[in-house]
Amino acid sequence: MEGASRPLDALNATRGKNVIVDLKNGTRYTGKLKAFDIHINVVLDEAVESKNSEVTRSLGTVFIRGDTITIISPA
Amino acid sequence: MEGASRPLDALNATRGKNVIVDLKNGTRYTGKLKAFDIHINVVLDEAVESKNSEVTRSLGTVFIRGDTITIISPA
Amino acid sequence: MEGASRPLDALNATRGKNVIVDLKNGTRYTGKLKAFDIHINVVLDEAVESKNSEVTRSLGTVFIRGDTITIISPA
Amino acid sequence: MEGASRPLDALNATRGKNVIVDLKNGTRYTGKLKAFDIHINVVLDEAVESKNSEVTRSLGTVFIRGDTITIISPA
Amino acid sequence: MEGASRPLDALNATRGKNVIVDLKNGTRYTGKLKAFDIHINVVLDEAVESKNSEVTRSLGTVFIRGDTITIISPA
Amino acid sequence: MEGASRPLDALNATRGKNVIVDLKNGTRYTGKLKAFDIHINVVLDEAVESKNSEVTRSLGTVFIRGDTITIISPA
Amino acid sequence: MEGASRPLDALNATRGKNVIVDLKNGTRYTGKLKAFDIHINVVLDEAVESKNSEVTRSLGTVFIRGDTITIISPA
Repeated sequence: MEGASRPLDALNATRGKNVIVDLKNGTRYTGKLKAFDIHINVVLDEAVESKNSEVTRSLGTVFIRGDTITIISPA
Repeated sequence: MEGASRPLDALNATRGKNVIVDLKNGTRYTGKLKAFDIHINVVLDEAVESKNSEVTRSLGTVFIRGDTITIISPA
Repeated sequence: MEGASRPLDALNATRGKNVIVDLKNGTRYTGKLKAFDIHINVVLDEAVESKNSEVTRSLGTVFIRGDTITIISPA
Repeated sequence: MEGASRPLDALNATRGKNVIVDLKNGTRYTGKLKAFDIHINVVLDEAVESKNSEVTRSLGTVFIRGDTITIISPA
Repeated sequence: MEGASRPLDALNATRGKNVIVDLKNGTRYTGKLKAFDIHINVVLDEAVESKNSEVTRSLGTVFIRGDTITIISPA
Repeated sequence: MEGASRPLDALNATRGKNVIVDLKNGTRYTGKLKAFDIHINVVLDEAVESKNSEVTRSLGTVFIRGDTITIISPA
Repeated sequence: MEGASRPLDALNATRGKNVIVDLKNGTRYTGKLKAFDIHINVVLDEAVESKNSEVTRSLGTVFIRGDTITIISPA
């Protein structure tokens, strides 16, 4: 996310890297950022779900609907 | 969901396969992904509904409105 | 809902048949699917409302606003 | 609401007749359907408001914003 | 709100008259309807705010964002 | 907010003057209205935040996202 | 945020400076404003997350989805 002046450029810089995705309902997904679009729909590979800091599921690949997301950050 | 650079391409790669669909209200549907659109409206075949890890209904085919969905993942 | 590749096609295949419509607030309507549009606004005939599995009203015809719906499934 | 293939056509068939309008917050309005638009904004005449089956107000005419509505049904 | 076939026409008929505006959060504003637009953003003059039937503030003029409104009715 | 027939014209009449901005979550900002747009995104100068009538922060300048706002009124 | 007549111009004036971003769920992010867009999607560098005035995480770079934001203010 270095040197980018638009949010989606910054997001693009993390493609292929591990990220944290937090949802509005408090669920967290960590995994490798494979894809995203302008709605901030996101696909993670090697994804792990956690709630209250406890791992709840290993999901492999996961599609996350953009409107449920609060933040995305490098892991 | 291999090799796709856009979220909907990744979703398309799971068409005809078993997926998990989690809703904002905590309900989960598992079934075969038959169809989806850009709103992430989804149709599952052979769908089973569960809440808190307990099966609540077998639904056969189910249409799920996109804006209620948090994540979709291969089952 | 057989053989359709788009969600609305699948929904169209249930037109005239009995369906279950679940709302975000937990209310359920069952009835004959008379009409729907791209917003998933739905009209049911011979509709019955239920909450927590108990019938609360017989409504005859009911117009259901799409953004309140979670799922639609053949009854 | 007979013989209509689109939801708004069905709604149009109840124009001038008594309808029930239920809101997301549980409030109910009954009155004569005077007008509606594609957002499902609705105007009722001779409107009565009720909550938990008890009449709370007589309003005469009332404009109801569409995005607060769950269902509309002939009274 | 007499003789109008579209909701905004009906609303326009109350311009300059006293109206009640109820919000989704239960707050009520009464005042003279000065202006509104297609989003149902509303401006009232001589506005009074009340909650649970008790007056909480006199506001003079108030701009109310449309998406917070449930109903508008002549006072 | 005198003499304006559209809500944004009325809002424009308070530019440079002290206003109250109430949010959906109950937080209130008071300050000088510096800027707003059609989404009702608002910028206040010399802004003070309060909750339950108690001042919680002095913020100087604050950008407020429109969809969190319920009302704007001259202070 | 000096001298700007549109909200996004005001926001642009804080680019590269430390800002506070408050979310609807009560979480706060402070960091250097690197990028934003018309949806108010925001990217912060050197970001720190806090809840109830207690620091919960140091995140480095964070992408914040616009529709979760209530306010942005210089730190």
